[in-house]
Amino acid sequence: MTAIRTKNVGRSVLRKEDRPLLRGRAVFAADINFSNQLHMRVVRSPLAHGKLLSVDTSAALAIPGVRAAWTFADVAEIPPIDFRMTKLTGLSAYRQTILAKDRVRYVGDPIAVVFADDPYLAEDGAEAVISDIEELPVVMHADGALGEFSPGLPTEPAVIHKEYGDVEAAFRDAYATVDLTLSIGRHSGVPIETRGAIGRYDPVHDILEMHGAAKVPHWNRDQIALMLGRPSASVHLFEGHVGGGFGIRGELYPEDVLVCLAAMRLGRPVKWIEDRREHLIAANHSRQQTHHIRAAVARDGVILAIDDEYFHDQGGYMRTHGATVPDLTAAMLPGPYRIPAYRARGHIRLTNKTPGGTYRAPGRYESTFVRERLIEAVAAKVGVDSVEIRRRNLIGRDEMPFARKLDTLGTEVILDSGDYAGLLDKALAAANWDALQEQIRKRRQAGELVGAGLAMFVEKSGLGPSDTVRIAIDAEGGVEVVTGAASVGQGVETVVAQICADTLGVEYEDIRVIHGQTNRIERGMGAFASRVTVMTGEATRLASTKLREKTLAMAAELMQTSVATLDIIDGVIVDAERRDGPCIKLSDIATALAPGGPFSDDREPGLTAEGVFHSDHMTYPYGVHIAVVGISPDTGAINVERYLVAYDVGKAVNPTLVEGQIVGGVAQGIGGALYEDFLYDDRGEPLSVTFADYLMPTAREIPHVDTLVTEDAPSPLNPMGLKGAGEGGTNAVGAAIAAAIDDALRRPGTITRLPVLPQQIRALLSRDSKAKDPGQEVA
Amino acid sequence: MTAIRTKNVGRSVLRKEDRPLLRGRAVFAADINFSNQLHMRVVRSPLAHGKLLSVDTSAALAIPGVRAAWTFADVAEIPPIDFRMTKLTGLSAYRQTILAKDRVRYVGDPIAVVFADDPYLAEDGAEAVISDIEELPVVMHADGALGEFSPGLPTEPAVIHKEYGDVEAAFRDAYATVDLTLSIGRHSGVPIETRGAIGRYDPVHDILEMHGAAKVPHWNRDQIALMLGRPSASVHLFEGHVGGGFGIRGELYPEDVLVCLAAMRLGRPVKWIEDRREHLIAANHSRQQTHHIRAAVARDGVILAIDDEYFHDQGGYMRTHGATVPDLTAAMLPGPYRIPAYRARGHIRLTNKTPGGTYRAPGRYESTFVRERLIEAVAAKVGVDSVEIRRRNLIGRDEMPFARKLDTLGTEVILDSGDYAGLLDKALAAANWDALQEQIRKRRQAGELVGAGLAMFVEKSGLGPSDTVRIAIDAEGGVEVVTGAASVGQGVETVVAQICADTLGVEYEDIRVIHGQTNRIERGMGAFASRVTVMTGEATRLASTKLREKTLAMAAELMQTSVATLDIIDGVIVDAERRDGPCIKLSDIATALAPGGPFSDDREPGLTAEGVFHSDHMTYPYGVHIAVVGISPDTGAINVERYLVAYDVGKAVNPTLVEGQIVGGVAQGIGGALYEDFLYDDRGEPLSVTFADYLMPTAREIPHVDTLVTEDAPSPLNPMGLKGAGEGGTNAVGAAIAAAIDDALRRPGTITRLPVLPQQIRALLSRDSKAKDPGQEVA
Repeated sequence: MTAIRTKNVGRSVLRKEDRPLLRGRAVFAADINFSNQLHMRVVRSPLAHGKLLSVDTSAALAIPGVRAAWTFADVAEIPPIDFRMTKLTGLSAYRQTILAKDRVRYVGDPIAVVFADDPYLAEDGAEAVISDIEELPVVMHADGALGEFSPGLPTEPAVIHKEYGDVEAAFRDAYATVDLTLSIGRHSGVPIETRGAIGRYDPVHDILEMHGAAKVPHWNRDQIALMLGRPSASVHLFEGHVGGGFGIRGELYPEDVLVCLAAMRLGRPVKWIEDRREHLIAANHSRQQTHHIRAAVARDGVILAIDDEYFHDQGGYMRTHGATVPDLTAAMLPGPYRIPAYRARGHIRLTNKTPGGTYRAPGRYESTFVRERLIEAVAAKVGVDSVEIRRRNLIGRDEMPFARKLDTLGTEVILDSGDYAGLLDKALAAANWDALQEQIRKRRQAGELVGAGLAMFVEKSGLGPSDTVRIAIDAEGGVEVVTGAASVGQGVETVVAQICADTLGVEYEDIRVIHGQTNRIERGMGAFASRVTVMTGEATRLASTKLREKTLAMAAELMQTSVATLDIIDGVIVDAERRDGPCIKLSDIATALAPGGPFSDDREPGLTAEGVFHSDHMTYPYGVHIAVVGISPDTGAINVERYLVAYDVGKAVNPTLVEGQIVGGVAQGIGGALYEDFLYDDRGEPLSVTFADYLMPTAREIPHVDTLVTEDAPSPLNPMGLKGAGEGGTNAVGAAIAAAIDDALRRPGTITRLPVLPQQIRALLSRDSKAKDPGQEVA
Repeated sequence: MTAIRTKNVGRSVLRKEDRPLLRGRAVFAADINFSNQLHMRVVRSPLAHGKLLSVDTSAALAIPGVRAAWTFADVAEIPPIDFRMTKLTGLSAYRQTILAKDRVRYVGDPIAVVFADDPYLAEDGAEAVISDIEELPVVMHADGALGEFSPGLPTEPAVIHKEYGDVEAAFRDAYATVDLTLSIGRHSGVPIETRGAIGRYDPVHDILEMHGAAKVPHWNRDQIALMLGRPSASVHLFEGHVGGGFGIRGELYPEDVLVCLAAMRLGRPVKWIEDRREHLIAANHSRQQTHHIRAAVARDGVILAIDDEYFHDQGGYMRTHGATVPDLTAAMLPGPYRIPAYRARGHIRLTNKTPGGTYRAPGRYESTFVRERLIEAVAAKVGVDSVEIRRRNLIGRDEMPFARKLDTLGTEVILDSGDYAGLLDKALAAANWDALQEQIRKRRQAGELVGAGLAMFVEKSGLGPSDTVRIAIDAEGGVEVVTGAASVGQGVETVVAQICADTLGVEYEDIRVIHGQTNRIERGMGAFASRVTVMTGEATRLASTKLREKTLAMAAELMQTSVATLDIIDGVIVDAERRDGPCIKLSDIATALAPGGPFSDDREPGLTAEGVFHSDHMTYPYGVHIAVVGISPDTGAINVERYLVAYDVGKAVNPTLVEGQIVGGVAQGIGGALYEDFLYDDRGEPLSVTFADYLMPTAREIPHVDTLVTEDAPSPLNPMGLKGAGEGGTNAVGAAIAAAIDDALRRPGTITRLPVLPQQIRALLSRDSKAKDPGQEVA
């Protein structure tokens, strides 16, 4: 057998996903309709905290066309939604029921649902539901005093503790310490497509379907089955197109379970499409944390220890992620630096806000901001340039693999490979760092407020434990790859087809990739944690290799030659040495191996193969962000002028896809750094319920992003050397922009909170100018 | 491992299929609707034969709500529908295109289709289509002179020739010969549910769906894919409930392809539901044959040779079956008798009638009528009782397996096992034959016209070449069996679940059987030729056995014991010797073997198994029919008073299902023997286009049917000894009733044509009475 060609892998072939999207033929949840469907509308709590005394649906039910209305009593037997990711115990009392029982805990908490013949009637019905709620005091800050949600349920469900080395000794012996309080605001994925779900029950075959699935269809299938007391095989979830995932979309929410239950009980398909206000108050929030962090530093700026205590604002319930975000925060905080001793204590606190979950680079956007702020403070403390301070603390390439002595998501954190200093050099060179400094100096002389900032980070990707891919070649020679991964816009069809095409020896265009359909494959892990290219990609390679071997063995027999001389080129089996010799088509092999076919007696029938890839450890890509910002002295507005991301992904299957991931990730990172913030008043009323209040960055706010994708450190954990590329664009944006703003203001350590808002800068500048020119106030 | 229990197999457990049917929750093709669907109406030729000069759709297209209308020009690139079954070559010119090109060949031939927003508009549109057809002479009889349909296309596409032994010599040396001309009318399955199909195209995933599939979804999938130039994997067929199959429903017809093509072209789901008139002129007809048969007989009534020349009236085109029916006619005609020399020449003739296909017991209902009429004639010729004549000619049980030296459907006819004389004895005893004769004698003395008739037959079943079944146990312990077989009312879910339950050791109720869904399993043979219980049943047993072994091996490891001591009882793995010992649930094994589970590293992941059963030869069940009829001297009406079927099926997995098959089969056989007949006038205009003209027997016309299901001759071709039970109830009805009528009339050899109609009998009786009492005419 000849070596596998790389006709597609490593090249930016066109995305398989784009054809329907560009032609306007994508089918999003709202585009899915079934005859005779009902429409569901959720009645949500108008108060942030209260005793739910009664919910009266009689006026709703009196509206013609309203077919049913439920309160907690109607769904009391359905258990709360369980955790998918967390490894902590003792959290189960904090789970959310699909309708609130006797307390409401945030504005938006579902207290009833109404089902009607059209969405307008459903909305009318929901407005006619009368609830009696006795308002209770709210808890709006995670780092204040502990409150109580209901008798016996403290607002601190758990404390995360991760530690290694002798932290106390390090601080005792330190040349200096730095001590910071830093916080990250509350923001989230906010995909352009709101959530949606359509439940449909087929009583004939006793099959429950949910359309509009995303991210983790198989886990959600299992959980819905369990909650409704059904075998998993009797529930099918179907993924359509997904208008943005970002961690938030596709988690299992109360609404998903409600449409399924209603479809079964009411005997009609049930459709629910979230409106934007609902999305902003009901779908997972993320990020909000406050850190009290300190570092013990040697005279040369080498960090001896980090000690962090942080508070994670989880909102009203623990959702499917459980403690994933605060756990990742602690595990990933040390980043690319050596840090000989480390302690993190994370308080998971409940507040009367929308519950939290993951959002692109969860726990890393936060911890990178905190860590890189700390590095800047250390640099200031010891009076050494912060780039140099980074160099002195970076883990060396000869120290790889580097065991962090921490664990997260059930895996040990072992940094598998990397040349952090090498990438720093490349990034500085790509940004023309020295010339940039000179340029900035000149602009400052001309009176501009301009500065540059840099941040470094380590990402995690390729979470196991396993992934399965099945490939079948049909009698027409068509190749179908079935995977339990999900497509959330990241290009899974493209990447899987690239790997299959090269490994098997067929044309990229001839491959069809099926994903997100639980009736097509028994198991699947979905798409999260930058895992798909690594796990599904390797499973695809394994399945393709097996299928190639099976194909060539059969071909050798049919062609009466030896396997060793055969190759598959563009779907045709040829004699590799004699290109003009006899050849045979894949369709002929498929026909020969069909059950009952001429060769089916003495071998496994069907031209199919399954590949399963296992992995106990994650892979760790890494990168450098460099931002240049200009600040308007009049308005305090911050303009990101340039942005560069250098990112080592081990091996880029499709470089354009990696670049796309980076650029999109930067845009979201800028949103969190400068614009997006879920704000509440002191009664817990959400203030960010429209796009006029919750500020999403538009194309106008996002600069051109330069990308430098490197392949210097392939992962030793998989044969292709893959690491995930999904979150590196987001990870360090807050950190790099904060450093750039500090630099522009020429006030190190100014920025301690994200997002950085113009009014804050304006206030600072105005204080400054007052201080400089006290007479001006009089004029 | 302990022996497999038989808790379910062999018992009449309740049918899995009945719950939705009895609760009114069945979903037939007409019950399937999709949002925004179009409705299709076929414009059919009003003339039996003609040149299609033009078809004008402009008036149809002018009707608001009519969205499209096509003629042949719009579908010219779609190839004609191909053959599924035939092994004859040279027939391709006789295939049907999905719309008629330049000739129409029967009343009902599709010449255009109209698509509209509702079915009424579609019908209005169809009526507005104007066709110009130049009428041509029609061919209405298969045994007349050869005609021509279009230039160069003779009406005899093929001649079937099967022969063994020295026929000429046998006739030369015979003691006597008998010579008969016999014919069978034109009738068909006529299921209570007419045909229907809904095409739906998903441009996003490039998936074409057809709902309303039946019988052979996988073959139809492949054929539709081929005709539309798509890979098979991009086409999914879905079977719903089926309101009667009988061979006719589920074959691929022009309408199925048209809805698929339209769904793709028009971008909306397209639904077509056949009305009853359409069904009677457009769906496959069957049966109609005329035989000129003779036998060479020894003095003792032993048949030395049979020589048959027959004419098969195929109608206007060769459809998916190709030559199956006339081929089976020739292959199965010798039945249970030795017949040392045999020759059959079958002329497949096209006529200007609805095209023909299979109908329950195809080729056997016809050939059994012909053969058993011949036996009766031989008995009369040599003056020996016809039961005794049968005994003298039956193949002995010690001659089994008996190679017939004929082949059909690509297999050699080797009668695998049987005790024909033994079953004859049992049937006569069950019918109280001697007492019956005495009873008849007494009733005749009282002036009644009453008689009994008997017929014997051999069926065929279990056609290979193979069948695949996949079984998976999910993490909740649910068992899912996926098969490519189809459910046409025969009880496939029940039988498969019975076999799986006993083999695997789980509860019958815990098993879900998935069938008729081409997206769930790559290959499937469907349901025809009484093949499912044999082929799918054995594949189920193989898959269950593999899954049991896999389960016990894992369990032994988990329980730290040896496989030999373990058993699975009602879904729990227990120590067979110590019932109170430790036990483990199937769900635990499934969890342990899940990909990424604790034991997934070193063995094949997933608690699943696939079974493939191969068979090169068919199995041959056999039976005896006994009918008692009374004739009204005034009206000629024939009343079937009693009916008994003795049938050896080798092994009855579910005796009640076998009895149900027999009783239903007898009802259809009586329809063909006494009532049903597709008649045409001499211009080819069909006269049987409503249920007032085409007489279906109702419960009133069907007597109680006694059944004697025996298991004396298990098939040696599969471990369970199975033979198929689907067609034995129909096979010999025409033959037995004809004999009984002859006996009632006391005129051997009277009945030479089916159906036997009252007016015929009335005419006979009136001729008789005139002959006896010539004076009466004057009065």
